[in-house]
Amino acid sequence: MTSLSCLILNCTLKSSPAESSSELLGSQVLAALLDHGVTGEMQRVVDHDVRFGVSTDEGDGDEWPVLREKVLAADILVLVTPIWLGQPSSVCKMVLERLDAELSETDDDGRMLTYDKVAGIGVVGNEDGAHHVTAELCQALSDVGFSLPANAVTYWVGEAMQGVDYKDKQPTPEKTVETTRTLALNASHLAGLLAKSPYPATS
Amino acid sequence: MTSLSCLILNCTLKSSPAESSSELLGSQVLAALLDHGVTGEMQRVVDHDVRFGVSTDEGDGDEWPVLREKVLAADILVLVTPIWLGQPSSVCKMVLERLDAELSETDDDGRMLTYDKVAGIGVVGNEDGAHHVTAELCQALSDVGFSLPANAVTYWVGEAMQGVDYKDKQPTPEKTVETTRTLALNASHLAGLLAKSPYPATS
Amino acid sequence: MTSLSCLILNCTLKSSPAESSSELLGSQVLAALLDHGVTGEMQRVVDHDVRFGVSTDEGDGDEWPVLREKVLAADILVLVTPIWLGQPSSVCKMVLERLDAELSETDDDGRMLTYDKVAGIGVVGNEDGAHHVTAELCQALSDVGFSLPANAVTYWVGEAMQGVDYKDKQPTPEKTVETTRTLALNASHLAGLLAKSPYPATS
Amino acid sequence: MTSLSCLILNCTLKSSPAESSSELLGSQVLAALLDHGVTGEMQRVVDHDVRFGVSTDEGDGDEWPVLREKVLAADILVLVTPIWLGQPSSVCKMVLERLDAELSETDDDGRMLTYDKVAGIGVVGNEDGAHHVTAELCQALSDVGFSLPANAVTYWVGEAMQGVDYKDKQPTPEKTVETTRTLALNASHLAGLLAKSPYPATS
Repeated sequence: MTSLSCLILNCTLKSSPAESSSELLGSQVLAALLDHGVTGEMQRVVDHDVRFGVSTDEGDGDEWPVLREKVLAADILVLVTPIWLGQPSSVCKMVLERLDAELSETDDDGRMLTYDKVAGIGVVGNEDGAHHVTAELCQALSDVGFSLPANAVTYWVGEAMQGVDYKDKQPTPEKTVETTRTLALNASHLAGLLAKSPYPATS
Repeated sequence: MTSLSCLILNCTLKSSPAESSSELLGSQVLAALLDHGVTGEMQRVVDHDVRFGVSTDEGDGDEWPVLREKVLAADILVLVTPIWLGQPSSVCKMVLERLDAELSETDDDGRMLTYDKVAGIGVVGNEDGAHHVTAELCQALSDVGFSLPANAVTYWVGEAMQGVDYKDKQPTPEKTVETTRTLALNASHLAGLLAKSPYPATS
Repeated sequence: MTSLSCLILNCTLKSSPAESSSELLGSQVLAALLDHGVTGEMQRVVDHDVRFGVSTDEGDGDEWPVLREKVLAADILVLVTPIWLGQPSSVCKMVLERLDAELSETDDDGRMLTYDKVAGIGVVGNEDGAHHVTAELCQALSDVGFSLPANAVTYWVGEAMQGVDYKDKQPTPEKTVETTRTLALNASHLAGLLAKSPYPATS
Repeated sequence: MTSLSCLILNCTLKSSPAESSSELLGSQVLAALLDHGVTGEMQRVVDHDVRFGVSTDEGDGDEWPVLREKVLAADILVLVTPIWLGQPSSVCKMVLERLDAELSETDDDGRMLTYDKVAGIGVVGNEDGAHHVTAELCQALSDVGFSLPANAVTYWVGEAMQGVDYKDKQPTPEKTVETTRTLALNASHLAGLLAKSPYPATS
C-alpha cells in the first residue's frame, strides 16, 4: 500500500499561541487521517510571514515558499478556515491566491504540480456560512488542480446569531465527529487511488 | 407622510396549504411593516403558474405578469426563501430571472421601473446558508434596480446539521424577532425617502 | 478496462427545439467523453415535467424519476447551465434540490447511491458568472456524494456587459475547447478509478 | 444642499507605485463622484500596515485606525477590488473583517456608526467573477450597516480565460464608463437623502 501524507493549513486570523477553533477542528481532521495511516502535520498560516500576491515566491522574506514546499510534498491538503461575515477568512483567501500561481507551474506533460493531490475542507464559525465557504474553496481548489472526494468538508456552526465558539463546545457535536471521519476516509481513499494512478498528460 | 406599500414573495417549494417556514417568517416581516403604516400582502409564488424565463411575460398562461404587477405597484419588495444545499430555492431563482427582464424595461429617462423601490430579504433553513443566500439576493436585486437598506435581511438557521424547522421553533428566537423589526424599520425609512425623492435620470 | 457511461443534463430555461448555448457546450463535453470510450447521452431538463421538491419522487406525474434513473445508471454526471444574473439557472437549482434527496438514500454500508460517481460542470453566459456557478455546483455535488476531478469545469463567457451567445461564437474559442478536453480526460480517469475501487463503507 | 464626502479603498494586492487596474477604476469612480460635488480621496489599503483581525484596533502599530477614521468621516464608501480565482482579493476580505467590528460599535440609539452611509463597489479582472464579488460585498456591507443604491456596482472583466488587464484596455469600454456614471449618480443621491434623514433609532 502506498504511504500517504497530508498537510493541514489553519487559516485563523490569530497568531499562536492564541486559541483557535480552526486549530481544534484541524487537529481532529489530522487525527482522523492518522487513523488511516496517513502521516502529516498542521501549520498555522499566520505564524509565517506570508505575503499578499499571486506568485510562488514574492521575495524579500516571503515565507510562502516554506508552506508551498509542504503543500507540494503532501498527497492531501486540508484547508481549515474560520467564518467571518459568512465568508472564508482573508488568510484563507491569501492562501488560495498563492495557490493560483500553480496554474502556470506545469510539468513537461502540461500537468500542474498539484494534480493527483486531494483537497479537503474544514469550516468553523459561531454561526452560518459553512456551505458558502465550502463552495468558494471547492471551486478554487479544483481550479488549481486538486481533486475533491465525496463529502469533502467537515464543519460546525451554531444557531443563527449565537456566539458560542467551536473550541468551547464540549463535547464535539456528534454530527461533526462523523463528518470529520467521513472526510478522512474519503480523502485518503481518493488520494491512494491517484497516488497509484495519476491523471494522464493533458496534451 | 407618503403612504407606502409592500409585497412579500414567499419562495418556498411547496404549494398551499402545505406549512412553510418561509410563510411564517414572511408573515412576521409583513406584520412588522404594517406596524410602520405600510400596507401590503404576501404571495406564495408556487401557487401561481410562473414559467421559467427571462421576459416579463412568457405567454401561454404564464402567471408571472400577475405577480409582476404587484411588484411594480409596491414600494418595498421582500423575497423570503428557504435554504436548500446552502443556497436560495429554485423558486427564488426563478423569480430573480423574471425580474432580470426589468433591465430592458426603462422609462423615458433611462430609469428601470424598479428604481425607487427598496428590497428586503428573509431566509430560513434547518441549518447554514443565510449569509450566502443574502449575498446572491442583494447582488441580483441591486442589479435589477432595487435599493437595499442597512441590515437588509432577517433570518434564522439552526445549528450545523440539525433538523428543526423555523415553523416548529416556538417562540421565535429573540435575535430573529429583533432583526425582523430592524429590517422593517430600515426598509420603510428608505422607501419613504425614495418615494419623495426619486433617483434622477441616468442620461 | 471498465466501460464507463455518462449523463449530461442541460439546465437551460428553454424547451426544445429552442436553440441553447448550454446544448452546444453539453454536446461538446459529450463528444469529448465519447473520445475516451465513455458512452452516454444528453437530456434537456425542461423537456421533462420535473417538479419542485426535495424528494426522489414528488408523485402526480413528476418526471424526475426518469432522469434520476439515468443519473444513478451513469458513472459521470455533467451539469451544464446557463448564467443568469451571474448565477446558475433556476432549472439547475431545481436539479440540485432533487439530488438533495440522495442524502437519505444510503445503502446498507451507509454510502449514498451517488458515491463512486464523478461530476463535471459546464457553464455558458453572455458575460460573467462562471466561477461562481462552478462554486455553487461543486459544493452541492460534493455534498450529495459526487467526486470532483482536477479542473472539473469547462466554460465560456464574453466580455463584461456584452451580448454575444456561445452558440453564435464561431469557431468555439480555443481556450474552451482545451478546457472541455481536460474535463473529459480527468473526469473519465477519476470515474475509472472509482468504478474499480469504490469508497469504503463509512460506518 | 448637503456637502457629501467619499472614500475609495483600493484593495489591490500590490503596494504603490505598482500599476493597478483597481486604481484606474477607483480613480474613475472618484472622478464621477467629484462631478456630483462630492469631495473625497482614494487610499490603497496595502500601502498601510493593516493587520488581520476583527477589532477596530489590533494594536502594536496596526494602521487600520487611520483608514477607519476616514471611513467614519465619509458619507460614501467605495470598495474597489481585483478578482482572483473568481473571488474578491484577500485584502478586500481583510477590510471587510475589520469593518465587522462596527457591529458592536453602536451609538446611544443602538445605531451602528456606519448607518446613513452608502456603499458602492468596483470590480476588475482579466476575466469572470464580478457578479460574485459584488454579491459578497453587498451582503457584507449591508451586514455592517451600509445602504446600497440601485445598481451599486461598476466593473469590467474580459472574455473567458483571457489575459488583458483593465489598465491596458484603452479606451475604457463604454459600458463600464456608463456603469461608473450610474454608480456615482445613485450613490450620491442616496447618500444625500440619508445625510438629511438618518435612519431612526432601532430600539
